[in-house]
Amino acid sequence: MTNKAHRLADLFSRPGLDFLMGAHDALSARIAEEAGFAGLWVSGLGLSAANGLRDANELSWTQVLERVEMLADRVDIPGLVDLDTGYGDFNNVRLVMRRLARIGVGGGCIEDKLFPKTNSFVEGYQELADPAEFGGRLRAGKDVGGNDVYLVARCEAMVLGRSVAETVDRCGYYEQCGADAILVHSKSSSPDQILEFMAQWGARSRVAIVPTTYSRVPSQVFADAGVSIAIWANQSLRAAITGIEELCRSLYEQRCMVGLEDGIAGLRRVFDLTGNDELEAAKTVYDRYFPEARSSDGLVPS
Amino acid sequence: MTNKAHRLADLFSRPGLDFLMGAHDALSARIAEEAGFAGLWVSGLGLSAANGLRDANELSWTQVLERVEMLADRVDIPGLVDLDTGYGDFNNVRLVMRRLARIGVGGGCIEDKLFPKTNSFVEGYQELADPAEFGGRLRAGKDVGGNDVYLVARCEAMVLGRSVAETVDRCGYYEQCGADAILVHSKSSSPDQILEFMAQWGARSRVAIVPTTYSRVPSQVFADAGVSIAIWANQSLRAAITGIEELCRSLYEQRCMVGLEDGIAGLRRVFDLTGNDELEAAKTVYDRYFPEARSSDGLVPS
Amino acid sequence: MTNKAHRLADLFSRPGLDFLMGAHDALSARIAEEAGFAGLWVSGLGLSAANGLRDANELSWTQVLERVEMLADRVDIPGLVDLDTGYGDFNNVRLVMRRLARIGVGGGCIEDKLFPKTNSFVEGYQELADPAEFGGRLRAGKDVGGNDVYLVARCEAMVLGRSVAETVDRCGYYEQCGADAILVHSKSSSPDQILEFMAQWGARSRVAIVPTTYSRVPSQVFADAGVSIAIWANQSLRAAITGIEELCRSLYEQRCMVGLEDGIAGLRRVFDLTGNDELEAAKTVYDRYFPEARSSDGLVPS
Amino acid sequence: MTNKAHRLADLFSRPGLDFLMGAHDALSARIAEEAGFAGLWVSGLGLSAANGLRDANELSWTQVLERVEMLADRVDIPGLVDLDTGYGDFNNVRLVMRRLARIGVGGGCIEDKLFPKTNSFVEGYQELADPAEFGGRLRAGKDVGGNDVYLVARCEAMVLGRSVAETVDRCGYYEQCGADAILVHSKSSSPDQILEFMAQWGARSRVAIVPTTYSRVPSQVFADAGVSIAIWANQSLRAAITGIEELCRSLYEQRCMVGLEDGIAGLRRVFDLTGNDELEAAKTVYDRYFPEARSSDGLVPS
Repeated sequence: MTNKAHRLADLFSRPGLDFLMGAHDALSARIAEEAGFAGLWVSGLGLSAANGLRDANELSWTQVLERVEMLADRVDIPGLVDLDTGYGDFNNVRLVMRRLARIGVGGGCIEDKLFPKTNSFVEGYQELADPAEFGGRLRAGKDVGGNDVYLVARCEAMVLGRSVAETVDRCGYYEQCGADAILVHSKSSSPDQILEFMAQWGARSRVAIVPTTYSRVPSQVFADAGVSIAIWANQSLRAAITGIEELCRSLYEQRCMVGLEDGIAGLRRVFDLTGNDELEAAKTVYDRYFPEARSSDGLVPS
Repeated sequence: MTNKAHRLADLFSRPGLDFLMGAHDALSARIAEEAGFAGLWVSGLGLSAANGLRDANELSWTQVLERVEMLADRVDIPGLVDLDTGYGDFNNVRLVMRRLARIGVGGGCIEDKLFPKTNSFVEGYQELADPAEFGGRLRAGKDVGGNDVYLVARCEAMVLGRSVAETVDRCGYYEQCGADAILVHSKSSSPDQILEFMAQWGARSRVAIVPTTYSRVPSQVFADAGVSIAIWANQSLRAAITGIEELCRSLYEQRCMVGLEDGIAGLRRVFDLTGNDELEAAKTVYDRYFPEARSSDGLVPS
Repeated sequence: MTNKAHRLADLFSRPGLDFLMGAHDALSARIAEEAGFAGLWVSGLGLSAANGLRDANELSWTQVLERVEMLADRVDIPGLVDLDTGYGDFNNVRLVMRRLARIGVGGGCIEDKLFPKTNSFVEGYQELADPAEFGGRLRAGKDVGGNDVYLVARCEAMVLGRSVAETVDRCGYYEQCGADAILVHSKSSSPDQILEFMAQWGARSRVAIVPTTYSRVPSQVFADAGVSIAIWANQSLRAAITGIEELCRSLYEQRCMVGLEDGIAGLRRVFDLTGNDELEAAKTVYDRYFPEARSSDGLVPS
Repeated sequence: MTNKAHRLADLFSRPGLDFLMGAHDALSARIAEEAGFAGLWVSGLGLSAANGLRDANELSWTQVLERVEMLADRVDIPGLVDLDTGYGDFNNVRLVMRRLARIGVGGGCIEDKLFPKTNSFVEGYQELADPAEFGGRLRAGKDVGGNDVYLVARCEAMVLGRSVAETVDRCGYYEQCGADAILVHSKSSSPDQILEFMAQWGARSRVAIVPTTYSRVPSQVFADAGVSIAIWANQSLRAAITGIEELCRSLYEQRCMVGLEDGIAGLRRVFDLTGNDELEAAKTVYDRYFPEARSSDGLVPS
């Protein structure tokens, strides 16, 4: 298993509850890493929203993977990439997994809905995938990604009003099709659905949850129930919105930065987050390069 | 002139000081528009940093323009795109301008340095372009962009330690080469350099400034000096960083969102900023479409 | 209507049979233009195959449009772009049409199958779209593309074994949903299916055909039947394959170019097809630019 | 060393003259592989021309690498990628090398000219890089690419009228800066320049040549002189042009394919070159997937 896939697997399998912090671009990923998080959730909603788009596959899969690559290159911690439905059928999933393996970000998560996807929190009818068709997507994804992509199957059954029992049955199927772990989604504001699922699921594959609607429930509740991973899917994005909004309003009104400078990061912080020092140091090595042999014998051609 | 190029020209030429709010992605652009700003600065530093990269042409020009297109598609206000040096020679500038005209974002700004660029606030030697070579980039850009791209020439002479007199001379040259307006940059913390430039420049082409290091100076000072546009180049990016940072730190520490939810935008706000309602409304029209003639006569094929 | 959309509409509506020559990249497009063709078919199969991919939506829609843009920029004649199924639902079609309108290539063609597509000549079960769902894709496409994209609806019913009567009924529906013209596909080696369709269709919207399997039928047969456009969908691609294959085999065997040089285009031809002379001429203007006023008064800064 | 980098190194170092066949897209790459060639030259001129562009860095570096990735994914043989000047300074080279290593195509070649490049066969003044600056690009490229990218330094000195002696001195320098091998270019129609270079160069790093202008010289001449690799840089592209041109002219004139079908590849050949059978076979496995445990106990959810 490549380094990051291995480390993501580790986060899922070690005892206790771990967290993946949502990132919507390379910058938010780097900030999450600096804050101490051991893993990232590369949010489909987040990538879409940062680009002004709906969480409805308005970004093409190659646009998503280009952003995933830049994000992965900026951090050392592994990321679980939200691949929505896998962008089509089993063959589209294979193409995605090949590139994901190459990027080496850590893992990928595909959900049991149909392309183009609708965000889980949007009202209205949404179709759940036929299990055998979705199973083919998982199997194909695993066969291509192998040990280089930790594969998570996301079950949307409860979000779409199906029973806990069906959810458990589906997740069992997904596990047999090749999923390394399960992400079980709920849009209830209470933790009961998740807890009931955990009770029925027992000690099978590791489970991740996304406490968006039930974010105020103490994490210990889920840790006690045996959940391995909690995903803070979009909080970072929402914090960015608030930060930008407040600055924009104040600056628009007062027409100068007096009193605002101290509330926002300095330019130096931007340079640090993007690694400027590394570039400045590299310039001293590479801007003009003289191999030792040459510089000593004066053979550098002019 | 296309709509947005015309509106950007208008912001530059109407009496009084106007502001362009920096945006680093489509989301921050949309927030700036909602806050009331009449125009945007599409920041090269911002696009780079959001993608975890240095402001050193680490994003390719096609990656930049892809992001510019998504940004422009999300707002109605015009944007002035920071094109760094134009990504090479006059011919690279022509390719960029053709796409910029097609996107219809408003305007483009190129600076009198060499590819690959170094950010103006990074210490160390930076080379200024030969005026005639840079003049060719401007002329070529104008010949391709025409009335569809408002062309701004950015002069870095004062940033690199040259005199105000040389700056004025260079800007006069750039104007004759086809620039519609001048962006004169300074990294002084006092407004004096800019004010001296304005005194010598007089009533020639319109002038934009970037109050990053001298952001605390009241805007009226520049308005009185005849400056047309002030650019808040990277404040939005820096506000996003702070917003994300604070959330990450708190969430990492307390392991649940209790007490944090109210400090960040709700999911509904994300949906609003990306226009979810438009998509939901469109579904009712297009998900299944029955032309009038057919629905009345029952001719819809099953 | 933009220039190329207007000219494509013209090709469809003027009396007599016209031809669209298939192109799989900008180079083949330019060669077709030079040979005299008045319009192009930008082949989905061709774009895929040139990139080593199956005609199964292995290229993302943004990768397709990037190639379409480069192709359109290299020729003056209009092109009809094979958009497969439109890459998803009505909303994906809207995104595609917005970019297609901006590129200004001429027109777009979507077919009544489901994403991801299967090539028409591949054996095995393929699903036809529900007419009302496909109608929504057409209506949405027309509402976005408007007069800037000539919209062609491609009906695959006969390819999938449906009757001519159903095909006529479907095409009538598509016309009412906003299609400017119809592409009716057949994989018969005889022209009979097409001719029967034309007989039943009559003088409704203009019709295009793709004589791949029935390519040996004299064009006059279709002209007499009232067909407006015949599309040489993939012949250029297949000619390229043969050209490359023969050269590779000979060169591999004989290990030098003796006797082979004269069978292939010279380097000068490559330069002509890509417009090198324009660049060389531009260099004399732009490499160093001196505005008239300056060069006369000696004010060019050194 | 990854598989393809290792195999490319092998081609360079084993006794005797080997050939790299030029490819301009994934299709031409696959055809070259089928013809028996053991390695590819991924031509910058070819990629540009196929996209209708001049060999003047009109494609961005990310557009180049996207095409390289698709090409590499379609063949098993290694490829040496023509990276022009490296697309900027040492830092741009580092970004390129990181992606090239990830793609695993085999090797990369950078030349001692300046960005944006001018094709070697275009007349007019072209600037040669300062050796120490170019040395920095090589060193940085090697430090990032390591054993995953076989690094070739291309010397354009003789093309730009410099002496063989300077060429030898430069190449020696490049070797010390980290180049694994040397590509020495000449646009003479006689082999003398190359032969003189080889005589002076002796048994240092392996040498590749590009017999474009001197393509009629028997390969044995170069083999005897100790050249390791001869690159057929653009012959495949030129063969494609001729193939397409002839088909277009005939088809335009006679308006049907009678007599032309047999001169071009069949559709089945297109399908074979793109691996359609693999996709059809995969469908039988993945279209609907039933894990063994489930299918036997009837637990497949409906």
